[in-house]
Amino acid sequence: MKFGGTSVADMEKIANVARHVKREVEAGHQVAVIVSAMAGHTNQLVAWTNEAARDPDRGEYDAVVSAGEQITSGLLALTLQGMGVAARSWLGWQIPLSTNEMHGSARIIDIDGSMLGTRLDSGEVAVIAGFQGIGADGRITTLGRGGSDTSAVAIAAAVKADLCDIYTDVDGVYTTDPRIVSKVRRLSRISYEEMLEMASLGAKVLQTRSVRMAMVNGVRLRVRSSFIRPEDAEPVDINNLQDQGTLVCDEEDIMEQHIVSGIAYEKDEAKVTLVKVRDKPGVSARIFGLLADANITVDVIVQNVSEDGRNTDVTFTVPEADLRRTLDVLERQRDEIGYGELVSSSDMVKISVVGAGMRTHAGVAAQMFSALAENNINIQAITTSEIKISVLIDANFTELALRTLHTSYGLDQT
Amino acid sequence: MKFGGTSVADMEKIANVARHVKREVEAGHQVAVIVSAMAGHTNQLVAWTNEAARDPDRGEYDAVVSAGEQITSGLLALTLQGMGVAARSWLGWQIPLSTNEMHGSARIIDIDGSMLGTRLDSGEVAVIAGFQGIGADGRITTLGRGGSDTSAVAIAAAVKADLCDIYTDVDGVYTTDPRIVSKVRRLSRISYEEMLEMASLGAKVLQTRSVRMAMVNGVRLRVRSSFIRPEDAEPVDINNLQDQGTLVCDEEDIMEQHIVSGIAYEKDEAKVTLVKVRDKPGVSARIFGLLADANITVDVIVQNVSEDGRNTDVTFTVPEADLRRTLDVLERQRDEIGYGELVSSSDMVKISVVGAGMRTHAGVAAQMFSALAENNINIQAITTSEIKISVLIDANFTELALRTLHTSYGLDQT
Repeated sequence: MKFGGTSVADMEKIANVARHVKREVEAGHQVAVIVSAMAGHTNQLVAWTNEAARDPDRGEYDAVVSAGEQITSGLLALTLQGMGVAARSWLGWQIPLSTNEMHGSARIIDIDGSMLGTRLDSGEVAVIAGFQGIGADGRITTLGRGGSDTSAVAIAAAVKADLCDIYTDVDGVYTTDPRIVSKVRRLSRISYEEMLEMASLGAKVLQTRSVRMAMVNGVRLRVRSSFIRPEDAEPVDINNLQDQGTLVCDEEDIMEQHIVSGIAYEKDEAKVTLVKVRDKPGVSARIFGLLADANITVDVIVQNVSEDGRNTDVTFTVPEADLRRTLDVLERQRDEIGYGELVSSSDMVKISVVGAGMRTHAGVAAQMFSALAENNINIQAITTSEIKISVLIDANFTELALRTLHTSYGLDQT
Repeated sequence: MKFGGTSVADMEKIANVARHVKREVEAGHQVAVIVSAMAGHTNQLVAWTNEAARDPDRGEYDAVVSAGEQITSGLLALTLQGMGVAARSWLGWQIPLSTNEMHGSARIIDIDGSMLGTRLDSGEVAVIAGFQGIGADGRITTLGRGGSDTSAVAIAAAVKADLCDIYTDVDGVYTTDPRIVSKVRRLSRISYEEMLEMASLGAKVLQTRSVRMAMVNGVRLRVRSSFIRPEDAEPVDINNLQDQGTLVCDEEDIMEQHIVSGIAYEKDEAKVTLVKVRDKPGVSARIFGLLADANITVDVIVQNVSEDGRNTDVTFTVPEADLRRTLDVLERQRDEIGYGELVSSSDMVKISVVGAGMRTHAGVAAQMFSALAENNINIQAITTSEIKISVLIDANFTELALRTLHTSYGLDQT
């Protein structure tokens, strides 16, 4: 069970979390709980580190910031004990949860689940400080953004948990954004691959990093609401995981696979086109190498085959916030790259149709293009992966496109 | 260097501490700094543990409360780095500072100073979270009241420091309480034994536990002010430690030993007399055993020789707050103890004349008694140790007695 910062924001909410845990313990389950810092506390600690030094050393940053999870893990263990539930807190270094020494964004190397396992077997709840680990140098590390989700999945893998329940402020993953499309449906199951492709929807729910780790380690993840009263929820029934939230699992575990599972979107994209680039080996590497050096993340890349065999057009998207810097880099290196014109437009949105069923079904892309065309929505670029088709359109058409596609692929709630 | 909670209460004060440290580093000293939690933060954490459970498990209490020192140690290390001073933070378990598993009031068993020493030799400042250690079970422990002073002394012993400077909100140890006697003098040196006997004065400055540890390990302790501007203080000159604060050291290191170093007092004492106690073996053991069982701390004990060889009077003091309970215990056990009358008076004060020179000088006690008699101050009980004479008097005479004795022993500032 994993609870984020808003779920442990004060002592009352921590007591609420404890009642969720108690319900599962009383149902006979062995429980490890991973907690974040109290909402706002991490920000306070981060602010202090920035006051202390202009570019705070990441090792010290980790020592300071990890204290937030340390506090909540101890407080939740105490609260459970106060309710008569055997519990103890675990810090990253006590487990140990070993990471590399990339402070501030460390990667998990290994988790020794043996001590945890022994204590879980004895009936004790393990309350684990999320987001933190220990480097080979014996210093505290933190896992960076979404770190507590990643901790939860990694711990679940280490103790071979049957399920990793992520309690969050939404009650599952939806076919698309409920704020835009009213007829959305909650997905009872979704495959890891789809969840990753749905990043724009899923990121509000699960960090993609934790999904990737769950996929690699075969951890069954479930997204469920932390707002439901602990007494109103049924304890986990491992043979019936569809009744609450959304289960993220292997494709094979989804009996009736929809062709399209959801429609994702990514706002604030900007499109850049280099017209008449000399079409010779290494030119793409040069362009995107320059942007990578400038720490600009490029998303969609489309390169047309050149008509005359000598020149080509290269189109790609960058976050709108990076557009100015992107153009600067390319203009400064115009001679080195060698291109005719530099064209850009901001206010773009990327709409993606995601579905594992595409692997075996033809015509999904054609359906998308015609549905958009019928609504006079102009497609400015297209990319595809095995289970996703993405198009770049004018941001003004976001709502129309999402609704049209949601209906077209039969995702509307009936 | 050790700084308490008020010295690290906010980022501005932490910067002040960093400048104190920088001054010493620039003078060529190797520095370990021990810090407490930000003032008030520990109280907040303790309050949360009490909210979480009625009688919080001490292990979890320690996990939560130790986060306070973790935060300040990291922030001070960062602040030093920001000033161009190489530094890193150390938590109790990283050193390691090993304790027993008496959570909440753990005792230090061993400190491995080797890693610290190597890093200090490399010129790096060690910023150490005070108050905390690690038990054999791998869990965080805290050292209880005055824990950070104790940490500082223990670390000083482990790294064989030349000096342990305790920065506090007074600028040294005085001949008596400056709030009562205006002509007080700051002592440039005081022996460990005297400091322990001056507990009533010293406790505001140094926890007796840390003084005892310094004495056993031969750590030279100095009490000095954290309020002086870092730029206004001279860096430590190990050959001249008398210019600032008060040095607590071996008796042999004090060249010109005063016969009397200071006058201490302890308020809110209550006197209890058991009249006509049957004078037979074991009766004292029974009386004080009963009080110990009731968790009542007895201070002065005076037993007069019985005149007739069959009865005796037993007088002792207890904290005034415990007087009611003390009388209850003794009345309930009247038959078991066997005594004639039970007499008590509250509002007493214990005045102590302290001086290592007493060992070799006669007449110190006589001088005390006559000085008090000249002022018509009635002595209600007397106890002595090798370097201390204590008398119990009516609390109304506290100020008169302190001033009289301060002058009589030549302690007044000239």
